[in-house]
Amino acid sequence: MSRFISRSAARFLLATAALVPLMAAAAEAPRPAMFGFRPDSEQAQRTLEAKFDAQLNPTDLRNWMQQMSSAPNHVGAPHNKANADFILAKFKEWGWDARIETFYVMYPTPKNISIEMVTPTTHKATLTEGPVAGDRTSTQVADELPAYTAFGGDGDVTADVVYVNQGMPADYEVLARNGISVKGKIVVARYGGGWRGLKPKLAQEHGAVGCIIYSDPADDGYGSEETYPKGGARPPQGVQRGSVLDMPVRPGDPLTPNIGATRDAKRLTRETAETVLKIPVLPISYGDAQPLLAALAGPLVPEAWRGALPITYHMGPGPTKVHIVEQSDWSLKPLYNVIATIQGAEFPDQWVIRGNHHDGWVFGANDPLSGNVAMLAEAQAIGKLVKDGWKPKRTLVYTSWDGEEPALLGSTEWAEQHATDLAKKGVLYINSDGNSRGFLGAAGTHSLQHVVNQIAGDLTDPQTGVSVLERLRARVETNAYDRTGGGDSANVEAAAKGGDMLIGALGSGSDYTPFLQHLGLAAINIGYGGEAVNDGIYHSAYDSFDHYIRFGDPNFAYGVMLAKTAGRLALRTANADVLPMRFGDFSDTMGRYVGELHKLADDQRKRAETLDRLLKSGAFKSAADPTKQVLPPPAEGAVPAIEFAKLDNAVARLKRSAGEFDSARAANQNGAAPAQLAQVNALLANIDRSLMDPKGLPGRPWYKSMIYAPGLQTGYGVKTLPGVREAIEGKRWDEANQYAGITAQVLENYAATLDKATALMKKPGVTN
Amino acid sequence: MSRFISRSAARFLLATAALVPLMAAAAEAPRPAMFGFRPDSEQAQRTLEAKFDAQLNPTDLRNWMQQMSSAPNHVGAPHNKANADFILAKFKEWGWDARIETFYVMYPTPKNISIEMVTPTTHKATLTEGPVAGDRTSTQVADELPAYTAFGGDGDVTADVVYVNQGMPADYEVLARNGISVKGKIVVARYGGGWRGLKPKLAQEHGAVGCIIYSDPADDGYGSEETYPKGGARPPQGVQRGSVLDMPVRPGDPLTPNIGATRDAKRLTRETAETVLKIPVLPISYGDAQPLLAALAGPLVPEAWRGALPITYHMGPGPTKVHIVEQSDWSLKPLYNVIATIQGAEFPDQWVIRGNHHDGWVFGANDPLSGNVAMLAEAQAIGKLVKDGWKPKRTLVYTSWDGEEPALLGSTEWAEQHATDLAKKGVLYINSDGNSRGFLGAAGTHSLQHVVNQIAGDLTDPQTGVSVLERLRARVETNAYDRTGGGDSANVEAAAKGGDMLIGALGSGSDYTPFLQHLGLAAINIGYGGEAVNDGIYHSAYDSFDHYIRFGDPNFAYGVMLAKTAGRLALRTANADVLPMRFGDFSDTMGRYVGELHKLADDQRKRAETLDRLLKSGAFKSAADPTKQVLPPPAEGAVPAIEFAKLDNAVARLKRSAGEFDSARAANQNGAAPAQLAQVNALLANIDRSLMDPKGLPGRPWYKSMIYAPGLQTGYGVKTLPGVREAIEGKRWDEANQYAGITAQVLENYAATLDKATALMKKPGVTN
Repeated sequence: MSRFISRSAARFLLATAALVPLMAAAAEAPRPAMFGFRPDSEQAQRTLEAKFDAQLNPTDLRNWMQQMSSAPNHVGAPHNKANADFILAKFKEWGWDARIETFYVMYPTPKNISIEMVTPTTHKATLTEGPVAGDRTSTQVADELPAYTAFGGDGDVTADVVYVNQGMPADYEVLARNGISVKGKIVVARYGGGWRGLKPKLAQEHGAVGCIIYSDPADDGYGSEETYPKGGARPPQGVQRGSVLDMPVRPGDPLTPNIGATRDAKRLTRETAETVLKIPVLPISYGDAQPLLAALAGPLVPEAWRGALPITYHMGPGPTKVHIVEQSDWSLKPLYNVIATIQGAEFPDQWVIRGNHHDGWVFGANDPLSGNVAMLAEAQAIGKLVKDGWKPKRTLVYTSWDGEEPALLGSTEWAEQHATDLAKKGVLYINSDGNSRGFLGAAGTHSLQHVVNQIAGDLTDPQTGVSVLERLRARVETNAYDRTGGGDSANVEAAAKGGDMLIGALGSGSDYTPFLQHLGLAAINIGYGGEAVNDGIYHSAYDSFDHYIRFGDPNFAYGVMLAKTAGRLALRTANADVLPMRFGDFSDTMGRYVGELHKLADDQRKRAETLDRLLKSGAFKSAADPTKQVLPPPAEGAVPAIEFAKLDNAVARLKRSAGEFDSARAANQNGAAPAQLAQVNALLANIDRSLMDPKGLPGRPWYKSMIYAPGLQTGYGVKTLPGVREAIEGKRWDEANQYAGITAQVLENYAATLDKATALMKKPGVTN
Repeated sequence: MSRFISRSAARFLLATAALVPLMAAAAEAPRPAMFGFRPDSEQAQRTLEAKFDAQLNPTDLRNWMQQMSSAPNHVGAPHNKANADFILAKFKEWGWDARIETFYVMYPTPKNISIEMVTPTTHKATLTEGPVAGDRTSTQVADELPAYTAFGGDGDVTADVVYVNQGMPADYEVLARNGISVKGKIVVARYGGGWRGLKPKLAQEHGAVGCIIYSDPADDGYGSEETYPKGGARPPQGVQRGSVLDMPVRPGDPLTPNIGATRDAKRLTRETAETVLKIPVLPISYGDAQPLLAALAGPLVPEAWRGALPITYHMGPGPTKVHIVEQSDWSLKPLYNVIATIQGAEFPDQWVIRGNHHDGWVFGANDPLSGNVAMLAEAQAIGKLVKDGWKPKRTLVYTSWDGEEPALLGSTEWAEQHATDLAKKGVLYINSDGNSRGFLGAAGTHSLQHVVNQIAGDLTDPQTGVSVLERLRARVETNAYDRTGGGDSANVEAAAKGGDMLIGALGSGSDYTPFLQHLGLAAINIGYGGEAVNDGIYHSAYDSFDHYIRFGDPNFAYGVMLAKTAGRLALRTANADVLPMRFGDFSDTMGRYVGELHKLADDQRKRAETLDRLLKSGAFKSAADPTKQVLPPPAEGAVPAIEFAKLDNAVARLKRSAGEFDSARAANQNGAAPAQLAQVNALLANIDRSLMDPKGLPGRPWYKSMIYAPGLQTGYGVKTLPGVREAIEGKRWDEANQYAGITAQVLENYAATLDKATALMKKPGVTN
C-alpha cells in the first residue's frame, strides 16, 4: 500500500523530511571501493552483479504483471490464491527452497454498504467504479469487492454532515475555533494530510457517528491531470479504497497481537480488539461527494480547506444529512505468504530478507505487482547464479506477502510467528511495493545510507543515461533552483558538493514495519517513481495493467531498475566481508533528530507564551470580524524545560563511538583475519536490536523501536525518536522526560556494541 | 480604482510589504502629546476634532451614495456630470470656495466589441453582466457601457489561444521553458499577480495579437465565497473592467503628457501616444472563460497556474481558436474635477490637499463613492466649523476627481496644469478611494508614519470598541500566531512591544500618483477594509448600492471612520505648529530599502552562479521527465558588485540628520518663536521635492521620484528606490550604478534640507 514514491506522496514526504534523494561521488571521480568488500571480493562481486543484471528481462516483468493483475486479487479472492501458487511455482522452478505459509486472519468484507444523502435533496453514492474505455479489466465489476475501507465498524446511521477538511488534528482545532462540534454528526473528510485511518479514528474520538472519505479533484483528479482514460488521473467515479485499522497502534491481525495467526492461535474477539474502529467508514468518489458538499451551509472554510470542486466549500453542519449503512462479513480469511530461501554458504544463520506483497485492492497492477514482478526477476536471476554454481555467504530469504493492504497482515503474522528466529538471525529486511517511472526513493535505517548511495551511483538511469544518483542530485538542485521544493537545504548542499545524500526515515505503509519497528531489524524501503501519473488510481479498480502500461512504466525499464537496485543491496549484504553499515551516518542523523527535539520544545514554549499574552490582551477578539463566530484558541499551560541532558550526552557518545568504528574498519578491514571479521559481523548484524525497548512506545507496546515509528497522529508519516517527540507534541512533559531517558539509554547501548566491535576490529595482530 | 484595502489586494500588499498595519502606544499608557502641536494648540485642536466628529452622520453618507450610484457614472455618462454638479453644489452650500475644472481627454468607449470561440466548438462571450435578483441598478443595462478594458487597441483578429496564467514576466519564463511562444496568438490571462494593464502590454511585447483577461473563480468567485446575490462574490457572468493604458510609463491623458489637457492644449495623436496599446484587449467572465480553457490542449500548467474551474488547465496553443473584435470611439471626452478651497488664515500658500475620485466603471458604489461620500462628510463638517468661526492656519483644498478609472485622468491633468503652484505650495496630498468594513490601511510618505499612528491610536473602532491601532496590532499579532500572514516580522515585533508600526510605500492605482511621484508632494493613501466581501464586484456592474449595504459597510460606520481619519490628518496638518513629520521613520525606512537592494543583488549573484553550474553539469536535462518537453532556463551572465557606497553613505548621513532634527524639534518646539517655526515649516513643506530628479526614471521621465514608483513590471505594486531596484532586477548594471548615485544624491539633498531645518530649530534665543 506504500505511496512513498507516488508524486503527491513524494511532495508530502519531502515536506516531512522522509524522502530520499541520494547522491554519489562527482561524475568524473574514480569509482570508490565497494563498501564492505575487500579488493578481491569486490572484483568477484562486480562480476556477479553483471551476471545478475544480464538475467533481467523487462518482458518477463510485463508478462507476470499482466497475468497476476488479470483478475481481482484481494485477500480471499480466488485469483489471489492463484497468484501465490504462481509465485511459489516460479520460485521452485528457479531453484529456491520455497513454500507457502498460511495464516488465518479477521478480514472484514462488505455485505451491505450504502451512502445516501437524504436532505436537502437526495443522492445515492455509487460504490462501484465501472468500465472505462480501453481498460480491459475494468469490466470485471462482478468479481470485485465494492469500494470500501476495511475495518470500519458495522453501523446504520443518519446524521447531519460536517466537512472536516482532511480530518487531521489541526482541522479539529479550526472547527473548534468556528464553534463546530462533530458530536453525533457524520464527517466528510478529503483524502490527504495524513493517513486515511486517522480520519475516522479522530472523528470517532470527537464523537462522530460515521465517516465518509472522498478524493478531491484538486489532489488527484482533474485538478492535477487529465482524467482516465484521457489521462492518468482519477475520473469522477474513481474511489480510493484502503485500510482504516488502527495500525499506528498495531498492524497485523487484530485478533492475535504479538503471535502468529495460525489456525489454532488464541484469539481476541472483535469487540476486545482495540485496533478495530466502532463507527462506519466508507470512501466515495468526487462525483458522489460533490452534491453532499455543495448542499452544506455553515461557516466558509479557510483557504487551505478548499478543493477543486466547482462549489463554495462550507463546514456545515447540515443541512446535508446522510444515511450510511455498513455491514461486513467478519469471518476469518486465509493468507498465503510465499517464503523462499537460498541457504548461505558461510553464515547460514544470518538472513538477508527481501519482500514485496502480492495482494491488491482490486487488480493491483501498480500496487503491489509492479514491485512484486521486479522481486520475481531478482529471484529468477539469483536462481540462475545459483544454478551456475554461486552461493551467497549469508542466507537469502525472498518473501511475497499476502494481506498487506488490509493491515500488513502477512508480513506481521510471519514476523510474529518467527520472532525468535528473526531476532537472532535477521540482518536486513529490504522492502519494495508499487514502482514506476522516475527517481529512486529510499528510506530506512540510517547506517545503510552509504551503501544505498553507492549502489545508486553504480546504476545508470534508463531514460537519461546518467547515474541514478546523479539524476537524484540533479533533481534536488534544479528543484531548489526552480523553488518547487526538492529536499531540505542539507540535501541541496550535499548535492552541490557531491557528498552522500540523506535517506529518509520510515514511518509505516508497507511490510517493513514489523521488521524495523517491532523486531528491530535494519530495514530499507526502495522504489522508483515520481514521473508516473498514478496518484488518481491508487487503491482503485483503475490500478490496472492497461493503466500501468500507459502511465506507470510503459516498458518496465524501471521495474528492471528496481530489481537491479534491490538485488544489489541483497547480494552485497549477503556477500560483504564486513556488513555495509556506516555508523557516522546513523549518529549524524540522531544528532539532527535531537536537535529537532530541542527546537520543537523551544518553539512550543515561545508559542505558548505568545498565546498567553494574546489571550490576556484580548487580541483575538479585537482582530476578529464580529459578524463571524470565530473564537480564540483555548488557553495552554506553560512549556517547561525538557530533560534533554541524557539524550545530548548519548548522542555525543554515539558520535564518538561511530567515528571510532568507522575509522577502525577503514584501517583494518583489508588486513583482518576472517574469524575476527565474523565476530564483528555478528555484532553488527544484531546492533539494531539494541534500539528496541521491551516496553515499547506509550500506549502502543507493539512498537518497540525508540528511533523510528509511524506517528500516532500522522499514520504513515514517520516520527523519529517517537517516545520523546510525540510526548512533546502532546504536551505530556513527564512522559517526554521519561522517554528522553529511555531513548538515551538505547543509544548508549548501541554505542556500547559499537565500542565492542571497534575493539574487535582493532585486535592486535591485524595488519593494515 | 484602488484595491489596496480589498481582501485579496491586502494579501498581495502584505506580501510586497506595502500594507499598512499601524500601532499606537499601549492601551493603558497616558495619551502622548499630539505630534506637531504645542500644549495649548493641542487643547484647541482636540476641541476642534470633537466638534468635527459631531458633524459626521452615517445617514448622510448613505443618502449621498444611493443618489450618486443610482445610474452609470463613467467618464462621459450624463450621471457623472450630474454627480460633479451635485458635489459642487454641496461644497458651495457648506461654504467652500468651489468650482468645476474641466479638461478634455482622449477616452475610448466601445463601438463594436466581441469575443467568439471558433474552434474546436463555438462559444460567444456575453459582455454584459445583466440583472441579479435584489440588485436594483443591475437592470439598467441599456445605460451601461459593455464590459471592456479602456485603451486596448482597435483590432479584428482570429488566432489560437495560449493560457498565460496571470501574464506576468515569470509566467512567460515558464512558457519559454515549455517551448511555447505567444507570437501570433491570443493570450488568455487570469486576473491577479500584478496590474491588469501589464498583461496585454507583456503579451504585445511577446508578439501576441490579442489579449483576453478573465476572473478565475478561485480568486474572487465561488472558490472564495458564495456568489452574488447569495453571497458577495463574483457570479459566473461578472466581469472586471479596468484600464490597460500603460500607466507605469505615464498616467493621465495619453495625448497631453506633462501639461493640462485644456481645450486648446497641444496634443499628440493616438498613434504617437506611447501609452496606448496596439492589440485588442477585452475582459470576460469565468462563465465565458470556461469553454475556451476547457478546450485547450498542450502542456499541463504548473500547480500555481491552476484556478478553480472544474477543468484540467493546459497552456495551449490551441485547439481553442478565438475571434476578437474591438473598435472604439476615440474622441475627446470632458472631465469634471470639483475643486473646493478654504483659505488658510496664517499660511494661505501652504496647501493641504484632500482627494477622492467620483467616476466609476458602472455604478461605482464602493469604488469610488464609498470614499467620496466620506470626503463629502469631512467637507460638510469643516464647512460647519468655518461657519462657527474657525479658520485653518493653512489652506485646505478638497478635490473630487473625474476620470480616475481610465488613467488617473482628472488628478493628473489638474496636477500637470497647476504644477508650478503645487510644487511651491503643496504640503500634503491625502487620498482615499473605495472604503469598507474592517481595518485601517495607510501607505505613503514615511515621514508621516508617526502622525498616522497617533491618529489611529486616538480613534475607536466601531465594531470592537478598541482603538483602530490596537485592532491593527491585534490582527498582526493573531495572524502571526495563526500563521495566516499579517505583516512582516518587524511589524509583529513592533505590535508586541507597543511601538509605532510601519506604513507601506505607495505604488499606483489611485490619484496620489501625480502628487507623490510626479510633483514630489508628501502623500498618503488611507482607507478601511478587509472584512467586506467585495473583491468579486470590483469594477463590475454589481459594485452597486444594494451590494454595498449588504457586503460593504452596511451602516456606513467605516465611512464615518474614514472621515474621522482623513479629516484629522487634514486638520492636524493644516493647524500644526510644526508640520507633523518624523524623519527618523523616513530614514529608517530608507535604510531598510537599501538593505533590501544589497540582498537583492547578492541573491541574484548567488542564483546566477548556481544556474551557471547547473547548466554546465546538465542537471536540468538529467532531472527532466524526457516524455515532457521542458527546457533549461536560458544562461545568464554573472552579477557584478554594485556601486552601493554612495547610497550607503547617504543613508548613514540621512539617519544622522533625521535624528538631529527630531531631537532638536522635541527640545525646542514649545519654546521657539513663531517666526522661527514658520521658517522651519517652510523647509519641511517642501522637503519632499528634494527626492525628485528632474530627468525622472529610465524610460519614464514623467516619474520623477527616486524613492517611490509603481513597478514597470508590477503596475500597481510599488518599487521603492526604483531607479536602482528595477535596474538590478533587469540586470542593467550600468544603470544600477548610475541610479545608485542619483538616488544617493537626492537623499543627500533631503538631509541637507533637514540640517538647515535643524539649525533653524536650534537658533540661539530659543528657550526650552
